[in-house]
Amino acid sequence: MIVEVLAVGTELLLGQIVNRNAADIGTRLADAGLNHYHQSVVGDNRARMVEAIRLACSRADALIITGGIGPTKDDVTREALADAAGVPLLFDDAFAERLRRYWEARGREMPDLNLRQAQYPDGAELIANPKGTAPGLQIEIDGTWIFALPGVPAEMIPMLETDVLPFLQRQIGGDDAAVVSRLLRTWGESESKIGELLDDLFEESQNPTVAFLASAGEIKVRLTAKAESEAAARALIAPVERTVRERLGTRVFGADDDIIEAVLLRMLEERGWMLATAESATGGLIASRITSIPGASRVFRGGVVAYGTEVKRNQLGVPATTIDQHGVVSEPVAIAMAKGVAAALRADVAVSVTGSAGPDPQDQPVGTVVVAVRTPDEVRAQTLRMPGDRERVRTYTTTAALHLTRLALEGASWGRR
Amino acid sequence: MIVEVLAVGTELLLGQIVNRNAADIGTRLADAGLNHYHQSVVGDNRARMVEAIRLACSRADALIITGGIGPTKDDVTREALADAAGVPLLFDDAFAERLRRYWEARGREMPDLNLRQAQYPDGAELIANPKGTAPGLQIEIDGTWIFALPGVPAEMIPMLETDVLPFLQRQIGGDDAAVVSRLLRTWGESESKIGELLDDLFEESQNPTVAFLASAGEIKVRLTAKAESEAAARALIAPVERTVRERLGTRVFGADDDIIEAVLLRMLEERGWMLATAESATGGLIASRITSIPGASRVFRGGVVAYGTEVKRNQLGVPATTIDQHGVVSEPVAIAMAKGVAAALRADVAVSVTGSAGPDPQDQPVGTVVVAVRTPDEVRAQTLRMPGDRERVRTYTTTAALHLTRLALEGASWGRR
Repeated sequence: MIVEVLAVGTELLLGQIVNRNAADIGTRLADAGLNHYHQSVVGDNRARMVEAIRLACSRADALIITGGIGPTKDDVTREALADAAGVPLLFDDAFAERLRRYWEARGREMPDLNLRQAQYPDGAELIANPKGTAPGLQIEIDGTWIFALPGVPAEMIPMLETDVLPFLQRQIGGDDAAVVSRLLRTWGESESKIGELLDDLFEESQNPTVAFLASAGEIKVRLTAKAESEAAARALIAPVERTVRERLGTRVFGADDDIIEAVLLRMLEERGWMLATAESATGGLIASRITSIPGASRVFRGGVVAYGTEVKRNQLGVPATTIDQHGVVSEPVAIAMAKGVAAALRADVAVSVTGSAGPDPQDQPVGTVVVAVRTPDEVRAQTLRMPGDRERVRTYTTTAALHLTRLALEGASWGRR
Repeated sequence: MIVEVLAVGTELLLGQIVNRNAADIGTRLADAGLNHYHQSVVGDNRARMVEAIRLACSRADALIITGGIGPTKDDVTREALADAAGVPLLFDDAFAERLRRYWEARGREMPDLNLRQAQYPDGAELIANPKGTAPGLQIEIDGTWIFALPGVPAEMIPMLETDVLPFLQRQIGGDDAAVVSRLLRTWGESESKIGELLDDLFEESQNPTVAFLASAGEIKVRLTAKAESEAAARALIAPVERTVRERLGTRVFGADDDIIEAVLLRMLEERGWMLATAESATGGLIASRITSIPGASRVFRGGVVAYGTEVKRNQLGVPATTIDQHGVVSEPVAIAMAKGVAAALRADVAVSVTGSAGPDPQDQPVGTVVVAVRTPDEVRAQTLRMPGDRERVRTYTTTAALHLTRLALEGASWGRR
């Protein structure tokens, strides 16, 4: 079963929003063992949508469309589906009534525009949208199943998971091959170095295939196997995964969904330790990544965003003489910040960052950042040089700070950066 | 001049990364007045890449490919371009030597794998990559210009801006129509309500066209005009923009690149006021968004991520009796947090958030958040109910907090949420 994804919206072409939906759908298609070879984007243009729908029908068994079913008149997915299927648009009275009641229940009057959402191409079925007012549509064109879902992720994902994926899985039954993908997450080496360490595996192996992916300083190694069952696919992956882990050692910090934030929280919880953060250049990014994980409060006390120098002094107790002697972007200041926030917030572990994120240099050249970590056993600091612009320096530094904290908790060396 | 974008990478199809490159390129194509109707994604598969290149050649004057030119063997853009053009791959000795020196200058030895990056299809020219080791490629196939750039944004964007876009603009000369897009940013109303307020404008107008875009609680209104010159296109937009602004009033907070963080910092700077943040549920997100703007230190003192209750008490001076009486997610606590952080960090303006982000309720049902703002003139608080999961609650609350701070600085009413 080959499934294609088409995202609709001129705002995507103009770059006003990023096509996160395609990624979210891609993940779920892979998990469901469905093949997925093409994603495309067209604007709010009826003719080009019809073309894109026909192209997908020529090469896929199913097409998932996101966007273009909202209430405003630039939303033309309904019309394009009717054109591509060669059928008229109908109006659903019962659905219009449900829309009205949905708005009433929220104490608001429905704008008349929303009535457009009760239209559908003849032959299509409506897909319930529990989180919004726009129902989805399902229609078969030339043997290809087409699903039109809203562009809003919070509405689209539940419809995908509740209706679309189970429907597709029912169509393929148990006969089709299972595809299993295993992601090994590493930090601390370049993509080419990781590639070199694993080069022969890639040469030898067609199943599982090995691929590499660099993002924000982390290199991911993906192993993908196909077999007649999920268990058989997993059995193909297992020995290759063992080899990869042996060769890469502590560079591997997790697998699949084990993002560094979650790994770090788990390590803290195992040790019964509480964490605090003291951030200058990253301005709250480390704390916000830690608190993105449900249950963070079990191990995270809080943090201080010490942007101004007086906050470093007053809230974190960094001595003025340390700042004067070494400069604000220095290992002694980072160490004083980590110790200070641990003391002030009564935490066992603290991570601190001070740095020059740019575009203008602050104390040190742009891209110079210092990370310090305090544990009950030790305090250490390291000066890093980060490439790129302000956003990149901040993001990479945040990721580095989380990993350096993990390595300090493990008692592992930080090595040279 | 029609330009198409093709992103290459199985990691995109698997949803392991989001195709931010397509958005970044889309923005720049629009700014350059180039037409852009299609974006697509294929995996690291030579045959499907060749097909995608041929499809683009059939409908576009230029194609920008991102990804697949890295050093590892799953990178096959070079091979696919040679196949599509029907030419062999050559090897550039001089370039191989440059690669070696690039690595040496960084005190590292080049992995042999990187030599792959010195290969190119016969007839192609190399595009310099000042930020990385993988050069880009430019080749003409059947009258369509094709540019292959790296997938890493920090490398790709400079090559796009320095080489690709100037080349394309030279090809079209001054004859082609200019496309100008104007984005008006609003907060505080639903997309359908905004659509209804502007409905007749959309009916009447073909040039400029009007479109709506919802993201994270903000609704953007995009006006796009085509004319023989940029000035003529701007003149078509101006009267429609005036009408939109009249109808939407203070809901409009900025245009084009005026993101709320930047608008807020500008307002603080005009008033000579310093800001501080006190965050519980948002865990540092407000501070990190404020500090994402260069020059934030001119108006941002810092913040306290008061995740644990004892941090609210000790660092922000929230009285234990206030927490006991009203609960931790309450307007009195939010007000005490805002006052407390303003006092501790000696700030003129403070914004605070306490809330229940989920998945488990904390004190109040999931999605209940309280925002308070303290200015030199007043303190106010409002309880909001945010839909969706933890990530959505945190993101929407952060955006709301920034907007409520803006409205408080303007002395404008917060209205009912």
